[in-house]
Formats: sequence, structure tokens, C-alpha cells
Amino acid sequence: MRLVTYSSANRWLPGVLIGEDVLNLNDVLYAIGEVDGPPFDSVRDLLDAAGGRLGGLSQRVAQLNPASIASAGLIGELHLGPPVANPKKVLCVGLNYSDHVGETGRKFPDHPDIFAKFASSLIGPKEGIDCSEVTANLDFEGELAIVIGRQCRRVSESDALNYVAGVTVLNDITARDLQYRGTQWLPGKAVDRSTPCGPALVTLDEVGDPHTLDLCTRVNGVQVQKSNTRNMIFSLARIVSYISHFLELSPGDVIATGTPEGIGAKRQPPQWLQSGDLVEVEIHGVGLLQNIVK
Amino acid sequence: MRLVTYSSANRWLPGVLIGEDVLNLNDVLYAIGEVDGPPFDSVRDLLDAAGGRLGGLSQRVAQLNPASIASAGLIGELHLGPPVANPKKVLCVGLNYSDHVGETGRKFPDHPDIFAKFASSLIGPKEGIDCSEVTANLDFEGELAIVIGRQCRRVSESDALNYVAGVTVLNDITARDLQYRGTQWLPGKAVDRSTPCGPALVTLDEVGDPHTLDLCTRVNGVQVQKSNTRNMIFSLARIVSYISHFLELSPGDVIATGTPEGIGAKRQPPQWLQSGDLVEVEIHGVGLLQNIVK
Repeated sequence: MRLVTYSSANRWLPGVLIGEDVLNLNDVLYAIGEVDGPPFDSVRDLLDAAGGRLGGLSQRVAQLNPASIASAGLIGELHLGPPVANPKKVLCVGLNYSDHVGETGRKFPDHPDIFAKFASSLIGPKEGIDCSEVTANLDFEGELAIVIGRQCRRVSESDALNYVAGVTVLNDITARDLQYRGTQWLPGKAVDRSTPCGPALVTLDEVGDPHTLDLCTRVNGVQVQKSNTRNMIFSLARIVSYISHFLELSPGDVIATGTPEGIGAKRQPPQWLQSGDLVEVEIHGVGLLQNIVK
Repeated sequence: MRLVTYSSANRWLPGVLIGEDVLNLNDVLYAIGEVDGPPFDSVRDLLDAAGGRLGGLSQRVAQLNPASIASAGLIGELHLGPPVANPKKVLCVGLNYSDHVGETGRKFPDHPDIFAKFASSLIGPKEGIDCSEVTANLDFEGELAIVIGRQCRRVSESDALNYVAGVTVLNDITARDLQYRGTQWLPGKAVDRSTPCGPALVTLDEVGDPHTLDLCTRVNGVQVQKSNTRNMIFSLARIVSYISHFLELSPGDVIATGTPEGIGAKRQPPQWLQSGDLVEVEIHGVGLLQNIVK
């Protein structure tokens, strides 16, 4: 199942992507016989209520005849937000591909290196990346992101994926000059409306093994990053388990899992994103995230 | 005016501290003639609605006869939460007293070094600090914290204090082992329910000059940190202005402004907080924050 957040009459609504069509989530749930309770206002609402049984819902949605439900619009024509528009927490892993650790010249990490963004950092697919007033060194970082499905505290690595709703694509856009003004990266990572995420939250049952996925980043059609999620140093399960030992994760929380080598800052000469650039992150089986730099 | 959040019938309610009495905020506002609109559910609600005119409200509250309003209870007897129980953002400045920069051996900063906690990190005065399962190196950091009063984006330093509601006391409790597992400090800083804050948000009109305040930290009655907010490297106005240039600050956002020297990690031998320890942070004119380590 592919969950999206789309705009209709100036409100964010939860949707399900089937083929090219976005269907209203509540219409879809009604059609598969989920008729109890009030309608869901958001994808996070769905996760709060049903994050533990997404696999079952996903299978029933897959058997649905989508033609029986009115489409809210084509994915290419709707205005989409991040799949979870209002996460309580947005966390990121800093150094999680050995080739990227190598290009930064840093020590190989013993533990996931964790920092934060905010919900206000996120934008949806095709929304403009708007950082030009605060940085001259805007960089891309294509990443797979975890979305938490169930409240999760001190879980073991072997149990951790049971708390994950699914994955999505995230571009951990970074203002490199702001990132390195201090020891802590937050100013370069949490610029308002700088971090594209989406288009869809793809539930784990549909993704299959999340550590076999080709990932690439392109700027104006030219490939700048290429890897596979099998090259991660710390697995999704390890990351979730690790974080859950110091803070409780909530349904809808987003965890970006790190970027492979090829970032603009380490190119010779450095390649900074410019106004008008199209930056794309594509993860096989998960989605294509396309944004223009304002 | 001193704003607090207190528990009544398992709900957090907004209150005003007058002497030793906590009065319900809505009763107080009614008594000074603020009778329009629905009651406020929280201190953040008040800031959202009236963050730009706190000084005026504060003056009218000061003229009130508190005996005309039923007390919700004595401050020493009520269960208090952080003054803002549900901030959208909790930010911290890492290195903002030169003596503390010296004891860490780090470079003198050119810009405020900013990192994040979460609303879930905060606890109230007298609530227990509960980190013993995740760290063996629990440390204290007494700090003055800013609370934002008005939505604030790209403000100048000269204008920045107009967006500040007031200040409070914060103990930036840190799990040093978790802090230094990676390059980023978040795991040591954002442990759930680890960061005491309060007792009251003291509005700026009542504080006067926030850069003349004696600050001290005690463990079991023994002074371990002593400084004055005049020793800050970056002023409150500079911090708010700096952050507001990369993200929009919202009413209720909390910004801890850094700790002076004396942290446990830099003592010989290091002094870690132990179960049962009483840790106190006191800032003259702002408040005394007392917590027991669980």
C-alpha cells in the first residue's frame, strides 16, 4: 500500500496511491469494509489507530477494484505534501554508508550518528526547495527514510521492524556553510521547508527486503549518487532499536537512514545546487522524488 | 508575571504564580477584564493568542488582589510540568560561556552552536530524572532558557527580544556516554523525560535585564556551577535572531542558552549524577529548579 498526503480545498488529506490515481484513504477503507470509527484526518491518524495491522490492510487494498472508487486526482496533477505531514519527530542518521564516511574523512562509526530535523523542515514532492536566502552552499543527500508505525520503546533489533510502517524517499538537503558553523549540524539540516520527502509511504509488505534497493540521485538529469541500501552500515532494524533505547518513537516519526557518497561538497570542484536546478532521488520500488530549487 | 503548568484531575492546566499560590490562568484573566474568547487550555495557547502583549497583561496582573481569586494550590504542593508543556521545538546553544568552552578544550565559537531536544525530553520541577537505564555518565548543565512569545522569522538582533515571552530555568541533563558516541550530541541530550524545566516562565518585564542574573547549580546542596548570565558569549537577542534566520520560531518554543563551567564530566575525578541525588539550578529572579535522579 502506498500512502500519500494530498491537498484538496486548502486542506491536507490522506490518500492511497493505486497506479497513477490518488484515492481518498477513507473511501478506500470504507470499500474494504473498515467502517468503524470516525474518518482519518491524516496518515498519522491512520498509523496511530492501525499502525500494527498495515500489512493486512495493504493486502485487502491490493485486492480492491480501484475503479469502484472515485479518484481524487492523478498523482502527477495533485499537490502532494510529505507522506506524513505532521510527524512529532524527524531524525536522521549521519554516516551510514562506508563510501560516504570515506569521502567525509571521518572515523568509521561504532553507533548510528543521530541528529534531528523538524516537521517544519519537510516539504512534499515537487514543492520548491527554498534556502537561497540563507546559504550559498546548498547540497543534496538522497536517502531512504523509515516511517514508524507503532509506539516503540526499547525494542530489540530482531523485533524492531514490527514497529515500522514502511519507507519513503527523502532528500536530506543541507546548507553546508550553516552545517559547519558549529560542531552541531542542525542549522544546516533544519532550514524551514528545505527537506523533500515522498511521494508515498510504501508499507513494508510491499517493499519486501528494504536492504536490496537501488538508490540514485540526479541533478538536472545527471546522476550524482548511486548505491544500494545493502551498503548501509547500520540496518533499519538496528537504527530503530538504537534510537528506541533513548527515546520513544511514535507513529509517523520519520528517520532518514543516511546518504551514500557523491555529495556536492566532496566533488572537485564542489557542486552546489543553484536556483532552477531539478534534483531527483529515486529508490527502486519506493519512488521518485523530484524538486526544483527556488 | 510568572506562568506555570500544573496538574489537576490528570490534566495539565495553565496557571499564574503569585507569591506561593498558583491561580488558574483563566480565572486571573477574567479578573483583570480579559473576558473575550474561549478559555486557554495551555500556556502555549496564551502565547499563541497574546504573546505580543504579555507586558501589558503582566502589569495588570501585578495590580490584582490575588485574594479575590480561589487558589488552585500552593506551588510546593502542586504537581507542575514544564511551563510550556508542549513546545513545537526545543533548541539549545552548546557553547555559550567562555569558561565552559575552555573546560571542553573546544575552539571559541564564531556562531551559536545549535542542537535540538524534543518536547518529550522535558519534565517539570520536582519530577524525577529517569535515565539510569541508558547511561552510566549522567551530568548536569544549569541554564537560562528563552521562551518565544511570537512567531518570529528573520528578525534583527535589535528587534529579537520583542519576540521573546520570557525566560525560565532549564537543566540540560546530558548522558555523556551517549553524547559522544557519534559526532552529533542528540542521543545524549534528548533522552525521554530527562530535561527539567521550570518552575515558571517569567515574563521579560518582570525579569528586567536578562544578562545580569546569577546562576548556580548544586548537587546535594554542594555548589558545582556558579556564573552570571552576563558571561554569555552570545546574547539572548543574538541567539533568537540567529536561529530565526534558518527556521521560524513559534510561540512556546524553548531555547536553552548554554551552561557555564563546572560540569561533572570535567571534574577530577568526573562527578556523575547518581540515583537519589538532588540536583538544583537556581537563577536569581527567575526560579529554583529542583529534581531528584531516579
